[in-house]
Amino acid sequence: MREITVLTHRLPDETRDTLARLVKEAARAGVTLRLDEEETSKHCLQAGPGLEVNAPVKDDVELCIVLGGDGTILRALQLYTGTQVPVFAINFGAIGFLATVERGDVDDGIRRALEGDFELLRLPAIVLDLDGCAQTAINDVAIHRKVGERVADLAYALQDEEVGSVRCDGLVVATPAGSTGYNLANGGPVMAWGVEGFVVSFIAPHSLTARALVVAPGDRLSIHNRSREPLDVAVDGRPAGEIPPGESIDARFARDVGTIAQLPGSTFYRRLRDKFGRLAS
Amino acid sequence: MREITVLTHRLPDETRDTLARLVKEAARAGVTLRLDEEETSKHCLQAGPGLEVNAPVKDDVELCIVLGGDGTILRALQLYTGTQVPVFAINFGAIGFLATVERGDVDDGIRRALEGDFELLRLPAIVLDLDGCAQTAINDVAIHRKVGERVADLAYALQDEEVGSVRCDGLVVATPAGSTGYNLANGGPVMAWGVEGFVVSFIAPHSLTARALVVAPGDRLSIHNRSREPLDVAVDGRPAGEIPPGESIDARFARDVGTIAQLPGSTFYRRLRDKFGRLAS
Amino acid sequence: MREITVLTHRLPDETRDTLARLVKEAARAGVTLRLDEEETSKHCLQAGPGLEVNAPVKDDVELCIVLGGDGTILRALQLYTGTQVPVFAINFGAIGFLATVERGDVDDGIRRALEGDFELLRLPAIVLDLDGCAQTAINDVAIHRKVGERVADLAYALQDEEVGSVRCDGLVVATPAGSTGYNLANGGPVMAWGVEGFVVSFIAPHSLTARALVVAPGDRLSIHNRSREPLDVAVDGRPAGEIPPGESIDARFARDVGTIAQLPGSTFYRRLRDKFGRLAS
Amino acid sequence: MREITVLTHRLPDETRDTLARLVKEAARAGVTLRLDEEETSKHCLQAGPGLEVNAPVKDDVELCIVLGGDGTILRALQLYTGTQVPVFAINFGAIGFLATVERGDVDDGIRRALEGDFELLRLPAIVLDLDGCAQTAINDVAIHRKVGERVADLAYALQDEEVGSVRCDGLVVATPAGSTGYNLANGGPVMAWGVEGFVVSFIAPHSLTARALVVAPGDRLSIHNRSREPLDVAVDGRPAGEIPPGESIDARFARDVGTIAQLPGSTFYRRLRDKFGRLAS
Repeated sequence: MREITVLTHRLPDETRDTLARLVKEAARAGVTLRLDEEETSKHCLQAGPGLEVNAPVKDDVELCIVLGGDGTILRALQLYTGTQVPVFAINFGAIGFLATVERGDVDDGIRRALEGDFELLRLPAIVLDLDGCAQTAINDVAIHRKVGERVADLAYALQDEEVGSVRCDGLVVATPAGSTGYNLANGGPVMAWGVEGFVVSFIAPHSLTARALVVAPGDRLSIHNRSREPLDVAVDGRPAGEIPPGESIDARFARDVGTIAQLPGSTFYRRLRDKFGRLAS
Repeated sequence: MREITVLTHRLPDETRDTLARLVKEAARAGVTLRLDEEETSKHCLQAGPGLEVNAPVKDDVELCIVLGGDGTILRALQLYTGTQVPVFAINFGAIGFLATVERGDVDDGIRRALEGDFELLRLPAIVLDLDGCAQTAINDVAIHRKVGERVADLAYALQDEEVGSVRCDGLVVATPAGSTGYNLANGGPVMAWGVEGFVVSFIAPHSLTARALVVAPGDRLSIHNRSREPLDVAVDGRPAGEIPPGESIDARFARDVGTIAQLPGSTFYRRLRDKFGRLAS
Repeated sequence: MREITVLTHRLPDETRDTLARLVKEAARAGVTLRLDEEETSKHCLQAGPGLEVNAPVKDDVELCIVLGGDGTILRALQLYTGTQVPVFAINFGAIGFLATVERGDVDDGIRRALEGDFELLRLPAIVLDLDGCAQTAINDVAIHRKVGERVADLAYALQDEEVGSVRCDGLVVATPAGSTGYNLANGGPVMAWGVEGFVVSFIAPHSLTARALVVAPGDRLSIHNRSREPLDVAVDGRPAGEIPPGESIDARFARDVGTIAQLPGSTFYRRLRDKFGRLAS
Repeated sequence: MREITVLTHRLPDETRDTLARLVKEAARAGVTLRLDEEETSKHCLQAGPGLEVNAPVKDDVELCIVLGGDGTILRALQLYTGTQVPVFAINFGAIGFLATVERGDVDDGIRRALEGDFELLRLPAIVLDLDGCAQTAINDVAIHRKVGERVADLAYALQDEEVGSVRCDGLVVATPAGSTGYNLANGGPVMAWGVEGFVVSFIAPHSLTARALVVAPGDRLSIHNRSREPLDVAVDGRPAGEIPPGESIDARFARDVGTIAQLPGSTFYRRLRDKFGRLAS
């Protein structure tokens, strides 16, 4: 039996019609859509042809369809980290950099998703060792001073060689997919999907010499908290823990951690231009 | 017979003693140093034990020793592009980012060079198609408006997708090894050796949106001259040709084009810190 | 009777000897030092010749001497906002950009302070209208998203013309004196003391077009909170209030708000070089 | 008799109709337009009512009308440097930052120009001492390495205090009006008209610490050529001389050097938004 997970963003009114449409087409195609407890309740769903409600997340589905923006897509990618399940996203968000099709192409998008008419792109991740527990960032890891504390004192090293140390608001480690987010806000470069490396940039560094550094994929990054207070760690924009004062955490690059569906012939560069416009124009 | 090419920078007074020392140690080690016509004349050399003068450059030597700075090291790497001959450089320049040992460690450097006591690092390059002729940049390709012309009008595309287009002084395409040069001057990121990708940045772009872009290693870059005048092309800092008005040139990333010798255990990050200081401090 | 206020930073051990020295010299010079309740208690002081303890702050003193760093100097300038009382600071902090003399020159500093052997420099300020109450920033006003909120949505207008609007961590408005602080961390320019204008920069703007703007001294700045949550406002690094969602606050430039003492012949540019090194080197 | 100078840009076909219209309206209003030899020949003009041909430039006209873009407007401002003659520009260029009205509003523009229905804005300038001859830049002074020379070695000092020194492509000194040009391309800040100060930025500095510096209006800037070759100096985009190796030139800020006409109620900030869009959006 063909099974597909569906995730939608937090405003069910916006996705309701598309979801109904998707259920209808899935039933017709002999596919069962699985929506978990939260989705079931959010959309007041009842089981029926092509629809399994209150369905626990499981890894052996053929696809994960997202109706949402980059936040929901990241959640889906996180959910299927380490599996081969592709995430096929219809953009219901503001930017939707990771989306497969735009909201205006819903009909075509549903058809393609159900027929498997798409290409796969494997995405790398940053793997963080936080208190002995591995956390995976598809986009970025952000280290941030706590509110009320005026400034963080942060250092980082690569292969045990300290490269940067400065008073700042924080530090961001981004994959190529995440480079157009918080990293860009710090003056970091745009990195095309397919670049083998990840980028480290400081948030508001009190220094004249701050510059983003693109790290080689095999190199271990250590981030050291020199502040008197713990620092907050966020993974893909969600709170993930703390670095206590005087302590360090390690991060490394990992290939092929998530999978997104793409339209045939789509490139990062077209996506960049469609979403951001030209780099200089 | 063991043979080693030697290249020195343009001020023979500065390298004379070290060269003499090198000849003596080479003779003792049963190695023949080969110096070409220019070097022979610059240093007024006479043939002798361990020394072949007016020696044409040939590819089947075991090593190329450089007494010089980054300019001379780049010339050596250019000379041995596409071979396995490593470049072992003793820094007689200002920065010497690509050098193996510093001037203060000449004795140890000569010993290591002759005994082969070093590690090899393969460097990638940018290969440029200029008038049907392939040119190879170990560091960078710089496209520049001609003097007197106030501004260039330049666009670039990746995989035929135009990504940037702007009036500017020019554009730089850099490898990781070249990222700490002209690219850095344009606000581009530092890229560690080992990153798979190359970086494109504009020189003085008349735009608010200019941002450096790190390109994936498999992607083809096209640079288009929209100006009414030809643009100058420089490869590793030396004039290499022109882009006529209305025409384009292509560039791509190539792995393992040059080889430099490194001390065991040396890393890009220590080199970065020794040469540039910390990124933010 | 000659009276001088004294303020010291939060580590009394570091300033104790210098304070004792200052009291002795003041007594000799017929000057009364006034230390408020907090200073009196921090240093366990007892009234004596040249020393009035638990002295309420008053405006008709001839000078305010600071033993501390930029934080304490800013506190002193805040205290004497709108008066003609100069702040004479001996640097006990890390940078001490606003300090008159360095810690190593304490003897000379005390002599100069007591003899009035210094020049006056009038500093401008940013005056903020916060809930109908005017607050004065000698260095900068920082607007910041609250912790836990991922991003702020902020716009600003000059003379009612909206100039910038972006999702970001926040926004900084700085005087020339404050330009080397948080503004610099946002990529803003260094502004010499004496420039008539103030600078607005975003903290980590999610935009390719972000650029610092130097505002003309007569122009009114309005900062608008487009977020769903209130934003924190800090004046010279200390919490000063909030901007509720959907509301705006106004800021304007005011001349000659604070006064610092300087050694004869000292310039901003030498100070810049001594404290920060060269801009590009 | 009312007299007005007219200047047009280098493509007479684009301005012919507007010029004819202007002549007709001037005749009707009893105003004589003066066009110099170059304009007369470019447009094949014949003397007639409201039109004096081959008219030498003179300072006692009431207005200078420009049909052109920023280049032509700068030429007009240069021509009337040190006089009170306002420049009223109808934008026939790409950006026209200094223009009074847009091309689409020609009729209204001509009426306003002839009726004197505009406000005056006085612009400051950078005055350069070049070989004992004062040159005046309304927008900017650009110092540039000569072509073929790879890099310039430049330093600058304020009030004899050296602040920056670096290998670079060059250096730009800009007024507020010029800050949106070459200065912006170097990462310098946008400066509103009305800011009292000018900005110095390096072109492609080989340094991690480069940062734009806004200089106080009373401070003297010295630019020192440390290269082995002379450096080119351009004033408002046009060649103006050289700095020989080892020598310096001085520059200073001067108020109220040129005058432009503006529509009532127009502000720099609206202009900025209309021409450049928002700073961050």
